[in-house]
Amino acid sequence: MDILIKNVTIVTCNAQNEVLKGDILIKNGRIARIAENIELSIYEQACVKVIEGKDLIAIPGLINAHTHCGQTILRSFADDLPLYEWLFEKIFPAEEKLTKEMIYFSSLLGIAEMLKSGTTMFFDMYFHEDMTAKAVQETGIKAVLSRGLQSDEKEDVRLDETKELIYNYSSDKIKVFFGPHSVYTCSYELLEKVAQLAQEFRTGVMIHLSESENEVNSCFEKYDMSPVKLCNQAGLFDTICVAAHCVYVDDEDIEVMAEKNVSCVYNPTSNLKLGNGFAPVQNMIKSGVNVAIGTDSAASNNNLNMLEEMHIASLLEKGMYRLSDILKAEQILKMATVNAAMAAGINNMGVLHEGFCADIVLLKANDFNMLPCYNPISNVVYSSNPSNVYATIVDGQILYMDGKLFTIDEEALVKEIKSIEKFLKESI
Amino acid sequence: MDILIKNVTIVTCNAQNEVLKGDILIKNGRIARIAENIELSIYEQACVKVIEGKDLIAIPGLINAHTHCGQTILRSFADDLPLYEWLFEKIFPAEEKLTKEMIYFSSLLGIAEMLKSGTTMFFDMYFHEDMTAKAVQETGIKAVLSRGLQSDEKEDVRLDETKELIYNYSSDKIKVFFGPHSVYTCSYELLEKVAQLAQEFRTGVMIHLSESENEVNSCFEKYDMSPVKLCNQAGLFDTICVAAHCVYVDDEDIEVMAEKNVSCVYNPTSNLKLGNGFAPVQNMIKSGVNVAIGTDSAASNNNLNMLEEMHIASLLEKGMYRLSDILKAEQILKMATVNAAMAAGINNMGVLHEGFCADIVLLKANDFNMLPCYNPISNVVYSSNPSNVYATIVDGQILYMDGKLFTIDEEALVKEIKSIEKFLKESI
Repeated sequence: MDILIKNVTIVTCNAQNEVLKGDILIKNGRIARIAENIELSIYEQACVKVIEGKDLIAIPGLINAHTHCGQTILRSFADDLPLYEWLFEKIFPAEEKLTKEMIYFSSLLGIAEMLKSGTTMFFDMYFHEDMTAKAVQETGIKAVLSRGLQSDEKEDVRLDETKELIYNYSSDKIKVFFGPHSVYTCSYELLEKVAQLAQEFRTGVMIHLSESENEVNSCFEKYDMSPVKLCNQAGLFDTICVAAHCVYVDDEDIEVMAEKNVSCVYNPTSNLKLGNGFAPVQNMIKSGVNVAIGTDSAASNNNLNMLEEMHIASLLEKGMYRLSDILKAEQILKMATVNAAMAAGINNMGVLHEGFCADIVLLKANDFNMLPCYNPISNVVYSSNPSNVYATIVDGQILYMDGKLFTIDEEALVKEIKSIEKFLKESI
Repeated sequence: MDILIKNVTIVTCNAQNEVLKGDILIKNGRIARIAENIELSIYEQACVKVIEGKDLIAIPGLINAHTHCGQTILRSFADDLPLYEWLFEKIFPAEEKLTKEMIYFSSLLGIAEMLKSGTTMFFDMYFHEDMTAKAVQETGIKAVLSRGLQSDEKEDVRLDETKELIYNYSSDKIKVFFGPHSVYTCSYELLEKVAQLAQEFRTGVMIHLSESENEVNSCFEKYDMSPVKLCNQAGLFDTICVAAHCVYVDDEDIEVMAEKNVSCVYNPTSNLKLGNGFAPVQNMIKSGVNVAIGTDSAASNNNLNMLEEMHIASLLEKGMYRLSDILKAEQILKMATVNAAMAAGINNMGVLHEGFCADIVLLKANDFNMLPCYNPISNVVYSSNPSNVYATIVDGQILYMDGKLFTIDEEALVKEIKSIEKFLKESI
């Protein structure tokens, strides 16, 4: 059914950062019109759902540009631990126990949380990624998916799984990228192979890049160059490349990334939680790198809440540079919308503009934490939380509204998650 | 009416950080019993409200240890600006326009937001503080209030206002402290006078302390000592003293604070947003300083959400020290509860313990962002947001439950706030 949102405050995220007051008409999954007072014909009145938007703010759907949805089941499984203990004594043994079915329900859980907090698309890397793809298909959210790749005896199996993902799941809603995990888990040969395959399949790659000091140091030891330069040399930057973290990138790295149109995904919470530190986002932006924002997984963040992630992203930069006027609200919101769409190679998403995908989030403007409202963009980025999300619309389909998810059996999902929780508690 | 919460997960915040499963009986505003299966007499059954807590987590009410509630009306009024412009061109001119009535509604707005996000008590400093006191009385929240003091021709008027606050509003719910704004706005003589008055009135003081590099540098220039040492010399630390921010305190300062039992309020969001930087919280804790957490006002934070503030507080320390295992969830939760009660000089608050004040927040454990739950404390501190708050109980009185505030006319408040918003927009 088509939708008409009346009298709504429209945060467009367009080049002029316009904030409009008016109506949004959604037809066939696209934004058909944005105008001050859209009148419907008698025929249309019968088949258009009207939402009164007087007390709502419309923003483009948020795009979580880096997560591992299958890991949502490990939320709070291992917190406040040294990195090594976290990874080797907790996360890896738990992941050994995860079945295909568990990854499916974990993905549903992550998607449920994301829809309720205004996310309409996410970038993902994990194993049993076909299960995440299934959850994406069923729920109607959008995703850029990748099967995580690394170098060992199963290297080729994983590459084949990626190809199967491409064949079986590529669609308007799902893009499949190649997902070399990192320069420290993939051989140089694998990186080169991935670069060739991505070009062959006309798709992109996503990779964890320069996340920790350790990674950079050992890359220099092994290859005598930085992870960024290594990826460039392997040809990974000759296709669409989305690099998560980028905490330890120097000016030369940034120059390479800008020149080769590599997108960086800023994951402030995860970078802090794992003790990695502060990414030089401001330098990247100034140098022309396209920067998006991601939550990382619930194992290294504890939530998939892009509203909080935007807030933290902006705050950190202001604190790190001791400047209150950098990374402004409108810039941050673009990082979480149109910049992420660009990272995926999609050019009709992330802006509220006629002809663009109707991926729209409606926020309650009259909730007490959203009042007063001298600047709607500020209130969205700095003041809002998931309790303010009224509706999440993907391709013109209402997936969440007024507390209810429409494509997920909420009660059944809670039950499944609790049973997996019980199993993992008892088996580790 | 007394309350029995059945089968609830109880995050006690006691010395052992116990998490229990059982019942909480609330009588006459206090926690009467915590036990596995509390049976009610027939008489009690008739006059006790029973809450089924199977899917809930109970935590002590959160205490926002530093804010300016009267400034909530300036949320998003001036964001992303250089500090000087923010203060002198925006905040000060707007404050000139604020009437007593506006401060009253602004306080109600802040209290509404805090109750909805699990806060049961707040520390406040502002002008027309009697209006904030009125809002506190009417809504049933608790507060430590202070009239902001500074040195100019109205110095004595403000001191008199403080005394009037003490006479008119001190109660079980309200404590009144003296509120010298800072060492750069108060003369040394005023600091000394405040120290004497606080002792005379057997109350405490709250002050902004070592918030910016500027403050510290100019204090050294003028007095040849740090703000901390200046306050100590003036006698401010000889009574209960709550120092907000403490971003630029060195090891000697910290030693003095620990020795004199000064409580520090960590305001991570505000410190970042205004470009001040990172407080050495870990050093303070290690040295034995009592550290609480505050949001600061909506003008320098944009929200009064203690759930987010706890999360950011923990993350920042982990990032700053590059250590994933410091400032653990249970430590953070204590900073937002029992440590803040200690800062106020209250010793029967902030822990779920028999005989203590029944200031309790109930969180929905089965919301998708709270599942799975291997560690309830982790989920509360790192994963939760205000959408998960089911009920906020202060002194055994339910002030918020299931989306509804019981002591605030929500519709009327929205209307008042919008009319003030309109006035301020047009007059600045």
